[in-house]
Amino acid sequence: MATTEKPFDRAALEQLCTKRFFFAPAFAIYGGVAGFYDYGPTGCALMNNIISVWRNHFVLEEEMLELDTTVMNTYDVLKTSGHVDKFADWMCKDLKNGEIFRADHLVEAVLEARLQGDREARAAKEGAAAVDAAKQAGEAVKKDKKKKKKGTVVAVELPDEERKAYEEILAQIDNYGGPELAQLITKYNIRSPESGNELSMPQEFNLMFESQIGPTGQLKGFLRPETAQGQFLNFKKLLEFNNDKMPFASAQVGRAFRNEISPRSGLLRVREFTMAEIEHYVDPNNKNHHAFQDMKDVVITLLSKDVQLQGKTQTVEMSIGEAVEKKIIDNQTLGYFMGRIYQFLLKIGIKREKLRFRQHMDNEMAHYACDCWDAEIKTSYGWIECVGCADRSAYDLTVHSVRTKEKLVVREQLAEPRTVEKWQVEINKKTFGPKYKKNAKAVEEAILAYTDECFAELEKELTSKGTALVEADGQKFEVTKDDVTVKLGTVTEHVREYTPNVIEPSFGIGRILYSLLEHSWWVREDDEARNVLSFPALVAPFKVCVLPLSGNAEFEPLVKKFSRALRQNGVSTRTDDSKASIGRRYSRNDELGIPYAITVDFQTVQDNTVTLRERDSTKQIRDTFENILKIIKEAQ
Amino acid sequence: MATTEKPFDRAALEQLCTKRFFFAPAFAIYGGVAGFYDYGPTGCALMNNIISVWRNHFVLEEEMLELDTTVMNTYDVLKTSGHVDKFADWMCKDLKNGEIFRADHLVEAVLEARLQGDREARAAKEGAAAVDAAKQAGEAVKKDKKKKKKGTVVAVELPDEERKAYEEILAQIDNYGGPELAQLITKYNIRSPESGNELSMPQEFNLMFESQIGPTGQLKGFLRPETAQGQFLNFKKLLEFNNDKMPFASAQVGRAFRNEISPRSGLLRVREFTMAEIEHYVDPNNKNHHAFQDMKDVVITLLSKDVQLQGKTQTVEMSIGEAVEKKIIDNQTLGYFMGRIYQFLLKIGIKREKLRFRQHMDNEMAHYACDCWDAEIKTSYGWIECVGCADRSAYDLTVHSVRTKEKLVVREQLAEPRTVEKWQVEINKKTFGPKYKKNAKAVEEAILAYTDECFAELEKELTSKGTALVEADGQKFEVTKDDVTVKLGTVTEHVREYTPNVIEPSFGIGRILYSLLEHSWWVREDDEARNVLSFPALVAPFKVCVLPLSGNAEFEPLVKKFSRALRQNGVSTRTDDSKASIGRRYSRNDELGIPYAITVDFQTVQDNTVTLRERDSTKQIRDTFENILKIIKEAQ
Repeated sequence: MATTEKPFDRAALEQLCTKRFFFAPAFAIYGGVAGFYDYGPTGCALMNNIISVWRNHFVLEEEMLELDTTVMNTYDVLKTSGHVDKFADWMCKDLKNGEIFRADHLVEAVLEARLQGDREARAAKEGAAAVDAAKQAGEAVKKDKKKKKKGTVVAVELPDEERKAYEEILAQIDNYGGPELAQLITKYNIRSPESGNELSMPQEFNLMFESQIGPTGQLKGFLRPETAQGQFLNFKKLLEFNNDKMPFASAQVGRAFRNEISPRSGLLRVREFTMAEIEHYVDPNNKNHHAFQDMKDVVITLLSKDVQLQGKTQTVEMSIGEAVEKKIIDNQTLGYFMGRIYQFLLKIGIKREKLRFRQHMDNEMAHYACDCWDAEIKTSYGWIECVGCADRSAYDLTVHSVRTKEKLVVREQLAEPRTVEKWQVEINKKTFGPKYKKNAKAVEEAILAYTDECFAELEKELTSKGTALVEADGQKFEVTKDDVTVKLGTVTEHVREYTPNVIEPSFGIGRILYSLLEHSWWVREDDEARNVLSFPALVAPFKVCVLPLSGNAEFEPLVKKFSRALRQNGVSTRTDDSKASIGRRYSRNDELGIPYAITVDFQTVQDNTVTLRERDSTKQIRDTFENILKIIKEAQ
Repeated sequence: MATTEKPFDRAALEQLCTKRFFFAPAFAIYGGVAGFYDYGPTGCALMNNIISVWRNHFVLEEEMLELDTTVMNTYDVLKTSGHVDKFADWMCKDLKNGEIFRADHLVEAVLEARLQGDREARAAKEGAAAVDAAKQAGEAVKKDKKKKKKGTVVAVELPDEERKAYEEILAQIDNYGGPELAQLITKYNIRSPESGNELSMPQEFNLMFESQIGPTGQLKGFLRPETAQGQFLNFKKLLEFNNDKMPFASAQVGRAFRNEISPRSGLLRVREFTMAEIEHYVDPNNKNHHAFQDMKDVVITLLSKDVQLQGKTQTVEMSIGEAVEKKIIDNQTLGYFMGRIYQFLLKIGIKREKLRFRQHMDNEMAHYACDCWDAEIKTSYGWIECVGCADRSAYDLTVHSVRTKEKLVVREQLAEPRTVEKWQVEINKKTFGPKYKKNAKAVEEAILAYTDECFAELEKELTSKGTALVEADGQKFEVTKDDVTVKLGTVTEHVREYTPNVIEPSFGIGRILYSLLEHSWWVREDDEARNVLSFPALVAPFKVCVLPLSGNAEFEPLVKKFSRALRQNGVSTRTDDSKASIGRRYSRNDELGIPYAITVDFQTVQDNTVTLRERDSTKQIRDTFENILKIIKEAQ
């Protein structure tokens, strides 16, 4: 029986990850805290290798400008970016015992449990054999549900229309905000899963970790929830560094933090994580990509928002070229990056058939995004968002520019001067100073910062009523047509000035790493206890294990010599000279995902030949160490 | 005139670093916050390359176990490690305007200013020519002092004994705690430098950033002040991963945070920084190192604590072997790592004559250390601690073990069983339960956790008085000789159990990077405006710049082709096809520290040859692109 047909045994994989120290709960000897994990030597090496491939694939190959900006951010920056007000989840409380839940997860878990109960009740009617089948099919789901604290599944049949309603709700669960969740909780009588108590209505909880900068306690700071803001703040310097050429991208790898309400699902929902983000700055009038030709025939799997809003989850296979042409994907640049993301994930070992791009629904989108496709990877937890590919439009650069009065724009020399209609403003200095006194400057600046729509409005009011209200420094001031003259005139421009749009591929490295562990894991057919992690050599934590056949003293200097030679050639090695049998040590290697093993034996002492064992096939060849080294270097 | 003889023009270097975006104040468009910096494309690449060399030099070559643990740490962990109570600096406040100073820096700045005033006053007496000389010599110092807010230097001659006292204080300024600083402030009438107001006495200020984990607000967390604790917490898993073999090392690269009272000196004293730390676990009875033979003849520059306590700063040149033999360096392992640190720093381009190892004085040492040598690098700010190499003894593993009751020890199979004297305890279960009721277990555990000294004490009291007090769960309990029997007996041991000592080389990457910028910077003799940053190719931000001679359309496909070929060979490149003259673009390259430039010209179109220009010598050779590529790959 092929392993893929069995239900996924997540507990066994978790045990393997702990045993081989890929990762483990942080502060474990202190009892641990949910949502914090440490990576051990294997997990850390795997992560470093994934990041290194990412750097080559994106930063190096696409000549991006990599930055390293601060994790600590100020209140002002994140207030402007919208995170202080909007970067929140909805939580509700068990009104009696005080237990806290993330509202959308709670609704999801309870409705899923009811559907499962419905399936069991229906199966029971159809006889015992069918019950078993239903249970087995639901196994993976049930295990997951337990972690979601859904309480017990009760076998109760649901009316058809209720079942249908639940399914539709679940298909768009990410589309609901607090008020909608409150309605669902009331309508479907959702209660605290374990206690059965009533719940409070959902309240917003900001997900940023807060702190104080400096000894006075007066400067509020937050740990960044994304690495993006640090890149936007440096836009002007980056453009200059790029000799004012557009388009271009900045990139950053680093830590980010989200103070999750109730973390779960291992590495998939954590409070501290490593991200890799790209901010590609592009002319809003031209989102074509110079290398789109190379990408247009790549076929990917798509789940558009229209399909989801119908309560469905059918995907389509489509070339990126076709998807852009049909406007399913908005533009070439977005499509190009989706293709690059796809290539990157396959390169590190993610399985093609377990990878899809899902479009965000409108309410689901982050406050800054105008379109977003997630690369989702299928795991035993379901489809997991691992890379977001969002069009943030001009949102961030605009808000920071308005707030700081720093121009974050591109100035493009026009080939031909052009005549444009533009609002022209004249401030009457004679009346302005005496009238607004110390506020005069603020009122003037407020008017000068007006958008075209605001000028049109102002002109209308001044013409019709003779006065208008201007907001500055939080107060309202009345201006008259004697103070300000506004009119639409034509001007000749030699330079076009625009705020770039931003396409942002944003990678959750921990989630990708965990998915890769699931996709790489299998057990040998002849022996279920023999785990293998088939990482591509490119990202494997160590490339080669050097093993002496036994504890014989003659082997030691050769093991040291070969090991040093490998490392000098940039091949990361691990030596396993423990007393375990060679078979057991090969098994250990398989569990560490090391693609090659070099064994030193009695013949090696004679003629300098070694055996090379390949992990997946367990095939062995024998050759001189020098030839084996060449083979390994080529395979990297 | 050689550049080295001129006073160091720090302002010019800072300007260069900003212009070429090595680093810049974070949140600059919001006005910035002291102590936070962003690294631009050049600085980030330079830092990544330094870290990459570090990983090869330490983790790969010495087969260390690299970890990636959380930045957020819990209160419990850092309370146990001593950071909640002791990780603090002394600050004092201007009693009138509320300005806050770090106390030791304030005393240092004021006394240095008085000494400078003394030098100027004495020089004035000796005539105008001498004044100029003194001023020039003091130039670099003065510029620095301004940043320390020392106020104005007043030319006042000091009595000889006062001058001598100041010099002695400054030589051991790091040796003073709060009470000593308070004495100095009173004794020498030190006041707020700019206002002249009186100062508060020094108060402790904890340097950790605090936050709250989770939605309840009840779980206190801190941003780690060092990466070490995450490594110690995982000791047991690491030892197991290492097949229980000793000695071994773990390592980690990552962010750490210190909420400095008053950050200054650019990258040298910041609130957020990248560290690289090694924790080498070693048998306390045997701190020899297996590779010491390879290191013993390496000669390094030493400044021992004895010399400093005499108020002096003379260094000696000594081989590591001799220093260990003479017990100047405590043991082989400490010496070995000092040698490895030395080799690493030279490898990335730090100048040998500007590198010394300074031993910490007793009061200066961190609370966990029992010996510590800093690798100090000379910069225009003086000698800067860039790498600490501390012997943390068994401090951390012991305190975490005591607090969590998790054994963090090594068990070593003894070749021969041995007989040892050991305290044996018998708890009288019959009296214990009824007498201490719910506290019985705690009292028992408290006694069992006693050290040998405590057992000896307990035995003495029980024998002499018949009773003794035991502290458990914060209360005191009386035990009698009927409850507990304690006696010294002999036991045969087959296994030796010990807590390893830890040797910790700890690298401040930002400080090393800044020092490297200073050491690498020079200006061309023929043109002072032409800056060069002579990074070794190994760490240079980009290895090659590809330049078309002009904007001719025939060059573009060649530039693209060569650039792609270089990148496919893992050579990081930058293309400079801006309209500036070739000479100006070469200058720009020199400022970016790019070691090689490949120029595509009309001949290239004909015969595929290019010119290769070397940065430092400006020498050029011409050859086919393929040969040039070979040269570059070999030089990396």
